[in-house]
This record gives sequence, structure tokens and C-alpha cells, in this order.
Amino acid sequence: MSGTMRAGKLVGVGVGPGDPELLTLKAMRALAEADVIVHFAKTGHASHSRAIAAQHLHADVVELPLHYPVTTELPKCSADYREALQNFYDDAAARIAALLGAGRQVAVICEGDPLFYGSYMHLHARLASRYRTEIVAGVTGMSGCWSAAGMPIAQGDDVFTVLPATLDEGELARRLSEADAAVVMKVGRHLPKLRRALVTSGRLSRAIYVERGTMVEEKMIPLAAKLDDEAPYFAVVLVPGWEERP
Amino acid sequence: MSGTMRAGKLVGVGVGPGDPELLTLKAMRALAEADVIVHFAKTGHASHSRAIAAQHLHADVVELPLHYPVTTELPKCSADYREALQNFYDDAAARIAALLGAGRQVAVICEGDPLFYGSYMHLHARLASRYRTEIVAGVTGMSGCWSAAGMPIAQGDDVFTVLPATLDEGELARRLSEADAAVVMKVGRHLPKLRRALVTSGRLSRAIYVERGTMVEEKMIPLAAKLDDEAPYFAVVLVPGWEERP
Repeated sequence: MSGTMRAGKLVGVGVGPGDPELLTLKAMRALAEADVIVHFAKTGHASHSRAIAAQHLHADVVELPLHYPVTTELPKCSADYREALQNFYDDAAARIAALLGAGRQVAVICEGDPLFYGSYMHLHARLASRYRTEIVAGVTGMSGCWSAAGMPIAQGDDVFTVLPATLDEGELARRLSEADAAVVMKVGRHLPKLRRALVTSGRLSRAIYVERGTMVEEKMIPLAAKLDDEAPYFAVVLVPGWEERP
Repeated sequence: MSGTMRAGKLVGVGVGPGDPELLTLKAMRALAEADVIVHFAKTGHASHSRAIAAQHLHADVVELPLHYPVTTELPKCSADYREALQNFYDDAAARIAALLGAGRQVAVICEGDPLFYGSYMHLHARLASRYRTEIVAGVTGMSGCWSAAGMPIAQGDDVFTVLPATLDEGELARRLSEADAAVVMKVGRHLPKLRRALVTSGRLSRAIYVERGTMVEEKMIPLAAKLDDEAPYFAVVLVPGWEERP
């Protein structure tokens, strides 16, 4: 380390959908060059993103784990939920700003792609105007799911839509019927409602339920053949398009 | 090579949006293990996907380049266009089937992700019921674009939509106004129409025009600041969501 202070840099590193082999060469380099790696996890749980990247962390890297203060299944409209999360991201950004100000290169490891529904975005929004940033794009969780299922998702002039299962039933049904292809995320306890919306929109027969695409514990089944309504928060339902496929 | 014939395998290999460093470790392995690599290109042009993967091809790999018989700017509804393309994919699938039947491992290299608007899907649909297949998910072109722009695209309960610029103006405007976040693909000669639809939907001020995200020739500019309507077919327009960002 020279006496000259380096400018710090914040790097959002996508580590892909779960299979450690779906890391990019650029992500490996970013992990190798980082002074500090940051990862998010639920309180009391190991970080998924860290597990994906584990074999590429160098021995003397400093780790800054960030534990969410609340669960993602709480009602998001509550003021308490919003305030707790805002404070959590403000505090995290302040800790990272101190590292960046001291010239450190800080890599935030992100499941999937950093700027597609990722927690990293909350840090980026707070820090990108003041510090150098770089994004290492990653394979998204949804790409991992349709690849694991071997299921072409969208082609040609298809309109493709990502929907949160939190939408109300009528809205889900309407948007499903208007999309040629869709991925429904955050399925969890919304599965019975989503099933009804898929029936209303005429899409149930195409729907495929996927848990942990590309991971060792991967599960997939046509939704019409799934007999129970148990689903984890991170399960997705794929509704492939490309109606004119040969 | 042993005397026993191996079962052939078709592998759709996503090589990412353009930066050769955005190849995954799994893609590198698939290229190293392939007996034959297949790539698509316009007649008279080098293959983009081959250029991205070039440094990872082994010296004795056999290459099977496939040249599209028609340009992608022809009207898709014409019977001639459709027939020429169907024949092209049928012929390509037959050539690949012969290799698979002879026990070869055939990797089709694909820009972006193989099952997301990719030409590989036409081969997969013709061959997956008869031969072993594997998909190596890739970083999509759109992830490359929003990462290069450093622009968070969708968060929380955002509805995210991918739209082809080929839709008519009213339909584009309606779908843009209904999506929290959108990516418009295949911009090309549709840019003046897309611009009007963005104005109607109140989204022009958010729109970012991107050419060749993550590539050396990358260009990006707020669409409202772009003074001409020149755009290549593969340009995209990003309309970021996450309205409540801090």
C-alpha cells in the first residue's frame, strides 16, 4: 500500500442466481480486488449471496455483513416497516461511506443482478452521487429459473412482464392476460390468489412453479400439478410466451 | 476418444451482453468441453456472439456458422419472411441433429441469455424433445445496458415490462403508462414513434437511450437530450422505475 490515498470505489457485484459457476469473470475480479465485501442477510441466517461467492473471496478480505432489521413478509405500507428499513439503509450507507472515504474498494455482493430488484440499489441511491461506483451485471434469478426448467420464455415481439404476487387478484389476472410472457415473483403466501388469477387469465396450463432455480435444492413442477399451496417467499411462477413456437 | 459412442448433447450457452468479462465460469467450461460450436450472424457480417466468446474457444473446436437468410428489419408478417426463416431453422436443426446423433457435444453460443428472445430457442424447440440439452444462463443485454448506465431499473413491488418498439404508438403509450419500469427493445427506425409514446405516457423525462451496453462502442444519453432520431436496430430505451427512491 503506498502512502497516497486511493479514491475509494463502490462496486455492486452480481453473483448470479445460485449456482456458483454462474459467476462472471468480472465478478471474480471484483471480489479479488475488493478490500471489503458487504453482504445482506436475514437476522439469524447466513447470507445467500456470500454462499454463492464463498470460493472466490480472498483470505484477507474484510467482511461487513448487514442484517435486515425486519422480515420481508411484513406489510410494506406500515410506517414502522418503512422507517426501520430506511434507518437500516442509512446506517449501512454511512458505514460504507466511511470506508470509501478512507480509500477502500468496497464490493457489495448481490444475488442475481445488482440493479434488478436488489438491496444494493438502496446503497447505490445513497452513495453514487458522492463516490465512484461500478456495476458488475449478473445473471438474474429469473434467468436461472427458466434455464433450469429448459423453458424458452419470450421470443420475437412478445411483451414480457415481471409481476409481484403482492398485486390484488383482479390486477394480477388483468396483467397476466395482457402479457405474452410473465414471471411472477415473491410468491409465498400469495400462491392461492395467484392460482385463481392464472385460471381467470387462461394461463394456468402454461404456468411452471420454480424454487431455487440453478441451486442444489432446485424444485420445479407445472403449477397445475402442484397439489399444495406451500411456497417460500422466493419461489417464482414462469408463464412462458412464444405462442407460435414450432 | 474411446470406441464407445457418447450420447450427444446440445448446450445453449449465454455469453452475456458484450463485455467478454461478463462470461460466466459455466459458459467457459461449456466452450472448453464442446466438440462443435454454433453461432448465428447476418450474411456478410461476423458473429457478435463469437466475438464475445473468441478468447475461450479451444484450438481444435469445429465451428458451424449459421447465416440468417433475411434481415430482421423486413416485415415479419410476410409469408416469404416467415417461410425463409422456418426453412433456415429447420436446416440448421437437421445439421445439428446429425452431429448430436454422432455423439458430439454441440454448444450454441448466444448473446445475452439463451432463452430470452434468442435465436437459440428456434433450435431448442426443434431438438430438445429428442436430444439431451443444457442451458447455461447468461447476463441479458438489458442488464448490460442498465448496469453500464448505473441506473437502478426496478425495485420492491414494481411491475417491469419489456416492450418491442414494433408495437403501434397507442399500444406503446398505454403499456408504458401501466408499467412502473420498462425496457423498449428493437428501437431502430421506430424511435420517432417511441418518442411520441413516451411523451403521451409521461415517461420521456426518465427515458435513457443506450447502444451497445458494456461494449467498447457503448453510447448512452437521456433520450430527451438526443437531438436526432438515428438508432440501430439493437438500441434500447430504459425507463427506470422505483419512483420512491431516496
